[in-house]
Amino acid sequence: MSDELKQVTHIDNVRLGDDEKSVVIIDQTQLPNRTVYLTLRTAQEVYDAIKLLQVRGAPAIGICAGYGIYALARQWDLDDPAAFAAKFHETAEYLNSSRPTAVNLSWALKRMEGVVTANAGKSVAEILDLLGAECRAIHQEDIEMCRKISEYGLSLIKDGDGVLTHCNAGPLATSRYGTALGPLFLGKEKGMNLHVFADETRPLLQGARLTSYELQKAGIDVTLICDNMASIVMKNGWVQACFVGCDRIAANGDAANKIGTSGVAILAKHYGIPFYVLGPTSTIDLSCPDGDHIPIELRDPSEIREKWYAEPMALPEVKCYNPAFDVTDHSLIAGIVTEKGICRAPYTESLAALFR
Amino acid sequence: MSDELKQVTHIDNVRLGDDEKSVVIIDQTQLPNRTVYLTLRTAQEVYDAIKLLQVRGAPAIGICAGYGIYALARQWDLDDPAAFAAKFHETAEYLNSSRPTAVNLSWALKRMEGVVTANAGKSVAEILDLLGAECRAIHQEDIEMCRKISEYGLSLIKDGDGVLTHCNAGPLATSRYGTALGPLFLGKEKGMNLHVFADETRPLLQGARLTSYELQKAGIDVTLICDNMASIVMKNGWVQACFVGCDRIAANGDAANKIGTSGVAILAKHYGIPFYVLGPTSTIDLSCPDGDHIPIELRDPSEIREKWYAEPMALPEVKCYNPAFDVTDHSLIAGIVTEKGICRAPYTESLAALFR
Repeated sequence: MSDELKQVTHIDNVRLGDDEKSVVIIDQTQLPNRTVYLTLRTAQEVYDAIKLLQVRGAPAIGICAGYGIYALARQWDLDDPAAFAAKFHETAEYLNSSRPTAVNLSWALKRMEGVVTANAGKSVAEILDLLGAECRAIHQEDIEMCRKISEYGLSLIKDGDGVLTHCNAGPLATSRYGTALGPLFLGKEKGMNLHVFADETRPLLQGARLTSYELQKAGIDVTLICDNMASIVMKNGWVQACFVGCDRIAANGDAANKIGTSGVAILAKHYGIPFYVLGPTSTIDLSCPDGDHIPIELRDPSEIREKWYAEPMALPEVKCYNPAFDVTDHSLIAGIVTEKGICRAPYTESLAALFR
Repeated sequence: MSDELKQVTHIDNVRLGDDEKSVVIIDQTQLPNRTVYLTLRTAQEVYDAIKLLQVRGAPAIGICAGYGIYALARQWDLDDPAAFAAKFHETAEYLNSSRPTAVNLSWALKRMEGVVTANAGKSVAEILDLLGAECRAIHQEDIEMCRKISEYGLSLIKDGDGVLTHCNAGPLATSRYGTALGPLFLGKEKGMNLHVFADETRPLLQGARLTSYELQKAGIDVTLICDNMASIVMKNGWVQACFVGCDRIAANGDAANKIGTSGVAILAKHYGIPFYVLGPTSTIDLSCPDGDHIPIELRDPSEIREKWYAEPMALPEVKCYNPAFDVTDHSLIAGIVTEKGICRAPYTESLAALFR
């Protein structure tokens, strides 16, 4: 693995500080113009980093929270296990309130709290050692999961292929490889020559700001396009597969992801290009029968009219419709790539089989 | 007609000044934030207005050039017809050099020059009267043409319908009604309740800056969306027809228009929504057999990475592919709406019939 790593510059988006009393993150809000690393030393700093989206992407948030609460606990001068446990739970609750709806945040903090609870009879020094191992495990498990998704994904393409992606599901949002972008990083490590077309992904421009940034930094051939150029790029014959991430997959294979994903899938079908959804099995929700049961978050019109611009691009009274996600119908999906393997249609059967 | 006009606020994008020695235009580069009218009094001012895109849209440029050269000629203190004709030709040549590839610009100036040439025996005062009539005719003919396109287009939709449009083919680019937006303005005048979804149209954002502006000002229900939201808007059942303009139509019905148009057409087909191209017969090029013969202009990457923004959205070294147009395959087009009627497939026959 160390040999492979030499070939690709991995962005260390979240890591434990050398003193193990801090967390170091890349400030994603300043990308792509400034590559700034922040050293978070206080509970308030960890809270703010998550709340202000300086760290974003569900897995990255979970990893940051795990490292964060461990680094904070290492600073406390508490020898009494009961006092330590009380302060730990209080701090976990505080950090968890930074983004209440982020599932990975509460999941990671609960894992860390579980270590404290399960080892109530041990010394603080022993508990700290176990906490250090746990937060490293959270990180390592995500790397392994992304690695497996990347390997399955890479089996779907060959040297010289072009891949179109939408939004950002890469290392910045996860760890090391990412999900939708994972096969591209892994392919680069294996010496493959792949060509990526990155939709800029309006209105928040994650494709421009983050995807093109991390691919370019890794030396992977990337071309940035506006979302409305996906059709001509496919027509030109430059795309052999589409790889996208996912926020939630229903039992029938319908997949919710960043707004515009369903349009990419329809274009891919029209041009005869396979369209793949990549994500961990944790995004598969078998209790959700189909896409109609996935609620779509509506965001502020100002993101379309004004955000990023030197001055507004539409009159303030012009209505905007600004859904954050759309649902791609399972009939448009050639495969769902998870860390446990590639599911194919009929998804009702293949997805359920993952959990048996 | 005057009764109808009361119902809709028409933007007077180009008109002759009251003194007939100037042209008044709305400065399109300042929209939507500032509604500024410019009074052009010198040849240099008319030249700059066209060159700097303060007036844009092929028909609007032609109208501006016609009014412009007439207004300039009215200022000259020349009684000798030969001296007048010489100065007229010199001025026409100068104005024509402002945007050498704009077909309507040279076409309108040639029409005006033709009046001078054909009436060489008359007095300057008589020639000036004829020139005044000619430039008004150029404008009036465009209004009539747009009106006919609008009427044919309106026959394709009914009260309460939703229409999705891409880019800008409205009054600002033409005269009074526009082409793709014409049926919507005409429908408003007739008291119909139509709902328009305007793609913002990256990277130059003509949909946000111009289309949503002119529809909103006219009191027409408009919702601005990012280009990648067309799919969900169609899936929601909100769109009964798509209306787009065109830059060039080949003999087989393949239609070149603003980048992203072909994607809208593919989505419309997927969702079973009719997709119509609206434009004057002058955009039909029977000498061009199909879309493969239409060259696609590639524009500067900075339009994607930097333009409009307070700071760049991608690293300067990130490649961008920035085609200005794409070609929509004739098989995706439900009808081509011209001032002479609606052409249906097979287009090779129906388009040729327009010119017989």
